[in-house]
Amino acid sequence: MRGNSLKKTRVAVLGATGTVGQRLLTLLEDHPWFELTALTASERSQGKRYRDAVRWVQTTPLPERFASMKVLPTAPPLDCPIVFSALDGSVAGDVETAFAQAGHLVVSNAKSHRLDPDVPLVIPEVNPAHLELARRSPHAPGAIVTNPNCSTIGLVLALKPLADAFGIKKVSVVTMQAISGAGLPGVAGYEIADNVVPYIPGEEDKMQAETRKILGDDDLILSAQCNRVPVLDGHLQCVAVELDRKADETAVRDAWERFEAEPQKLGLPSAPKRPIHYLEGCAAPQPRLHRDLDKGMAASIGRLRPCPLFDYKFVTLSHNTVRGAAGGTLLLAELAVARGLLETTPT
Amino acid sequence: MRGNSLKKTRVAVLGATGTVGQRLLTLLEDHPWFELTALTASERSQGKRYRDAVRWVQTTPLPERFASMKVLPTAPPLDCPIVFSALDGSVAGDVETAFAQAGHLVVSNAKSHRLDPDVPLVIPEVNPAHLELARRSPHAPGAIVTNPNCSTIGLVLALKPLADAFGIKKVSVVTMQAISGAGLPGVAGYEIADNVVPYIPGEEDKMQAETRKILGDDDLILSAQCNRVPVLDGHLQCVAVELDRKADETAVRDAWERFEAEPQKLGLPSAPKRPIHYLEGCAAPQPRLHRDLDKGMAASIGRLRPCPLFDYKFVTLSHNTVRGAAGGTLLLAELAVARGLLETTPT
Amino acid sequence: MRGNSLKKTRVAVLGATGTVGQRLLTLLEDHPWFELTALTASERSQGKRYRDAVRWVQTTPLPERFASMKVLPTAPPLDCPIVFSALDGSVAGDVETAFAQAGHLVVSNAKSHRLDPDVPLVIPEVNPAHLELARRSPHAPGAIVTNPNCSTIGLVLALKPLADAFGIKKVSVVTMQAISGAGLPGVAGYEIADNVVPYIPGEEDKMQAETRKILGDDDLILSAQCNRVPVLDGHLQCVAVELDRKADETAVRDAWERFEAEPQKLGLPSAPKRPIHYLEGCAAPQPRLHRDLDKGMAASIGRLRPCPLFDYKFVTLSHNTVRGAAGGTLLLAELAVARGLLETTPT
Amino acid sequence: MRGNSLKKTRVAVLGATGTVGQRLLTLLEDHPWFELTALTASERSQGKRYRDAVRWVQTTPLPERFASMKVLPTAPPLDCPIVFSALDGSVAGDVETAFAQAGHLVVSNAKSHRLDPDVPLVIPEVNPAHLELARRSPHAPGAIVTNPNCSTIGLVLALKPLADAFGIKKVSVVTMQAISGAGLPGVAGYEIADNVVPYIPGEEDKMQAETRKILGDDDLILSAQCNRVPVLDGHLQCVAVELDRKADETAVRDAWERFEAEPQKLGLPSAPKRPIHYLEGCAAPQPRLHRDLDKGMAASIGRLRPCPLFDYKFVTLSHNTVRGAAGGTLLLAELAVARGLLETTPT
Repeated sequence: MRGNSLKKTRVAVLGATGTVGQRLLTLLEDHPWFELTALTASERSQGKRYRDAVRWVQTTPLPERFASMKVLPTAPPLDCPIVFSALDGSVAGDVETAFAQAGHLVVSNAKSHRLDPDVPLVIPEVNPAHLELARRSPHAPGAIVTNPNCSTIGLVLALKPLADAFGIKKVSVVTMQAISGAGLPGVAGYEIADNVVPYIPGEEDKMQAETRKILGDDDLILSAQCNRVPVLDGHLQCVAVELDRKADETAVRDAWERFEAEPQKLGLPSAPKRPIHYLEGCAAPQPRLHRDLDKGMAASIGRLRPCPLFDYKFVTLSHNTVRGAAGGTLLLAELAVARGLLETTPT
Repeated sequence: MRGNSLKKTRVAVLGATGTVGQRLLTLLEDHPWFELTALTASERSQGKRYRDAVRWVQTTPLPERFASMKVLPTAPPLDCPIVFSALDGSVAGDVETAFAQAGHLVVSNAKSHRLDPDVPLVIPEVNPAHLELARRSPHAPGAIVTNPNCSTIGLVLALKPLADAFGIKKVSVVTMQAISGAGLPGVAGYEIADNVVPYIPGEEDKMQAETRKILGDDDLILSAQCNRVPVLDGHLQCVAVELDRKADETAVRDAWERFEAEPQKLGLPSAPKRPIHYLEGCAAPQPRLHRDLDKGMAASIGRLRPCPLFDYKFVTLSHNTVRGAAGGTLLLAELAVARGLLETTPT
Repeated sequence: MRGNSLKKTRVAVLGATGTVGQRLLTLLEDHPWFELTALTASERSQGKRYRDAVRWVQTTPLPERFASMKVLPTAPPLDCPIVFSALDGSVAGDVETAFAQAGHLVVSNAKSHRLDPDVPLVIPEVNPAHLELARRSPHAPGAIVTNPNCSTIGLVLALKPLADAFGIKKVSVVTMQAISGAGLPGVAGYEIADNVVPYIPGEEDKMQAETRKILGDDDLILSAQCNRVPVLDGHLQCVAVELDRKADETAVRDAWERFEAEPQKLGLPSAPKRPIHYLEGCAAPQPRLHRDLDKGMAASIGRLRPCPLFDYKFVTLSHNTVRGAAGGTLLLAELAVARGLLETTPT
Repeated sequence: MRGNSLKKTRVAVLGATGTVGQRLLTLLEDHPWFELTALTASERSQGKRYRDAVRWVQTTPLPERFASMKVLPTAPPLDCPIVFSALDGSVAGDVETAFAQAGHLVVSNAKSHRLDPDVPLVIPEVNPAHLELARRSPHAPGAIVTNPNCSTIGLVLALKPLADAFGIKKVSVVTMQAISGAGLPGVAGYEIADNVVPYIPGEEDKMQAETRKILGDDDLILSAQCNRVPVLDGHLQCVAVELDRKADETAVRDAWERFEAEPQKLGLPSAPKRPIHYLEGCAAPQPRLHRDLDKGMAASIGRLRPCPLFDYKFVTLSHNTVRGAAGGTLLLAELAVARGLLETTPT
């Protein structure tokens, strides 16, 4: 992996015209550590100015200095140590391998390499040490590190403090996922208005497999049912858990409220002040009201109550394209830099 | 209870201006057995013509001959043997008792008397015999019979064939319920657009208690989590079940597809041809596409698959203001008539 | 053009997998005059069973006997005198010409030939006589007849009685058009939820040019502003008109309410009983409540009131995929048959 | 009117639990000039802590130090020179008069006094000098100053530069207004989902009368048609104008882009950097994408093009509860302070 002696580390975004790519750009606009120097997209867009290639759907304006950048082919090498992959899972696999083998640190939001045994799958608050696996990268001289599925992240952020404090045996989860999780064009307006689609291809398996890998617990029994609902952003999840060791409600809430982790201790720029907010009141969290907490990087939890079938049930919410995708990927890159994966740390 | 020698049985609707009352009117417009002769509403509306008292939100026009009916006070007696109660739960209790004691058969959609031990709580396809309890009414000379909560009906319709064939031990259910379930004005547009509200007051308890009463199974363990989603009509439910006796997927589907019950055998006017439709394909049922099956009186089920925690998981849908309220109440009245609860059957 | 001695006239649907094609199938399921014998789609779908080629988004089930039909290539000849074209405007032009030249009567919903001077553009209630132009078809031995744009139809239905009674000088119209007007996948869910898109490519020009052609009035001055709103079906239009001859409000309403036309006189199977419903009350028409009037074939009008700039303003609504597309196209074919364009009338 | 020698001017919010009141609180949380010292609500809420009285629907958390404030009766006097009135129009009239007569400067968002000839109706960028009318207040020793209707503000911001540069003769406007404009509970979810309501009580008259008063032009002919659309925030308007003096498109756009006004020159804390943003591209502005420009205080305009009926048509958008209500009211108070209406300016 190549180091970088400039003040800011140069980064590229692969697949910059999609919803996750767009979000990354908004988050990189004033980033203290990273400087966007290249962006790529599919063949159709190459050679165009970014502003002409993208159908911008963010609620903040397209940053001026990115608007005029030329869209490059999605192929190595690029003149930057870190490349963010916001590529679609259908094409990311080989491309990410090629970038890593060309010496880049590929920080990926795609599903392609998540379950590869020698590729780290990391939520910075949950399993930061897994990142060390990248030092023995099978794609040397570079490496691939991966951000989990958007639903997995919200769930595992809520589970981790419970796993640490009490152990978890079983998890039942039903998701109500936002439209933006399907990318662009994604779900047709005519299919989702006044409707719920009770199926998201591959999602239930991803949640089950990724959760086990991140928590490092192959014995965890998890059942997921995934639904698409007419909400723009924010995945809401109804969860029930069976714990290894019994705990009263106060202890469970304490576990969440006292939870802090490496990104907070390191003061990573994209880390939320608190990764988990327990919300009082009987009708929280709600996607529209709470998805933007801590700039969309915090998970919120509410409605903790006993469950007749397991120990507890509760509701959790996280912003799927911020915490669950662009923001999570960015935080992962910051963690990689802070842990010295680039050999030199930025200052 | 008073009989009726006219060709059609005279009926009244209490609380006729609400969403359930409106639905009842559309269903009574051409009913072969019943003739609407009175409608009541709250004090504000009394004395007005119905068209001037109601904010009509149905997609079919307000039937002309109902439009000019005068809105009466909600108090007995009315000149009809059957009164449908579409009253809000906050006021229904005493009013329904008074109507029954005045000799009416009160067919109620309200929650007030559902769990009274001597009041039948009936889904005509599931526990028609419970209706006989009305012959020993504590409110003689009339009686109160009740239609379950809109979510309970959809769930129990799906559970009943499994309970009969295999026995059920445990049920986990997460609902995604439509806006119309909250009545009018109900949920504010500003609260539900681009949002999910993960709480419906009292709903989880109702589902648990009513399901046990209808299935007559006090040992059933049921956990419900209820959510309001931005869908106009149709409650979708993600269900997981543990059976008493193991069954393969084919047997489970057969149980649903072969299910027929008393309303179908009796040919009740509002009975769906088949109470349950199992839908092929990975993304069914969906509220907008399938809520109107069999005129909104059928439940649809899809996505049967093994569950890592229980035996099976699946998705079920039913129209909450038709099957789950107005249509279910009407079917219940038809069953009461067919079983001779009015002493004379209509012809 | 080839006649047909069978009881029902054989018809085909070109582009049967789109939203307009799907609607046509639901309308053809029990049609008294027409029998669907062929359906075509793009290359990707050819050879498949229709059920496997289509993403069915209608709220009524896919008719069983159409589900198993094989999808044919979109090329002549087909064994039927009438072909309905539900093709996208980007491909319809040459294909429709080829079908007509092969002897078919092409009844088209596509924009391609609408403004050809020798091709009739017809709303059956408005300018049925224009259909006679097809007898001098430039594409003999067959012919192309066209159905207007979905917004044009709703507007012109409202204008025609005023044009007949008072003459029209100027029209200002702002549309609020439903998602289904953009077909499938059409507008992305993420683009239209909680949003309005104030632009529909080509729509404003179409409305202006088509209205003039149908009304046969080149002097009419019309300004259209077209918007996409998060509504599933039903185009709502805010209209203001300046009349040639002054008229009081009663006269204007009478013109609408007394309006009847050739489809009603001929008793065409798809004709609404009344093509225009004037709705009382200050907040009508509304898309969800009134789009299905007369099976979606009637336009509804409300809020007639004086306009400070012109003479009157009002609101009009019509179902864009029924009256404005599939149903309108079907009615046009019925008119063609009734006028003897196939030389033999169906019986 | 009483002055204030403290660093920050003390302010109260009347009607603090409604949507406009809530927005005001979020805007007052870190305000450099104003300090919230009292909040009032209807009888039902009085004596409660604000957090217990309010159903908070903002996407930022309820500011902690406001949450524990006690809700006061809506009656003078309060210990602060400025009171913001976020009261409903049905009760604001007499209450505002009483507060003014008790010596307060009432900065009102309610309709009650807007058209009173001796009460200023002011958009700070448009007619700041009208504020001087408050020095001859009929409600001495205090005064009432009013913020226009939410739709009026967006329209007049777009018209003012044209009125200054070219003069305006006629305006045709059709609005597509957000749900939040109706307050809470406002429009029922069941009424607005998948729907447009083509009527907002009183709105069309308000727009016509207020626009003339603000622009000081009684000869302006304006026709408004107002619709409620399923959008959370942001009123979109399709406008057509006839100018006094002809101008080419470049001149019109220049007028908007060069527009700056007193709030910008004075550097008022809530003033947008630019009050008007002309957006390039064929499909802008859109409510979801552009309502938050300049913190929701800027109007955005797009799609300028010639109009067959008038001179030009275009689309304009403004955030109805920020620019059109809470933010506009706050800016108005800032202007009043800056112009010395409180006798001493804050520092």
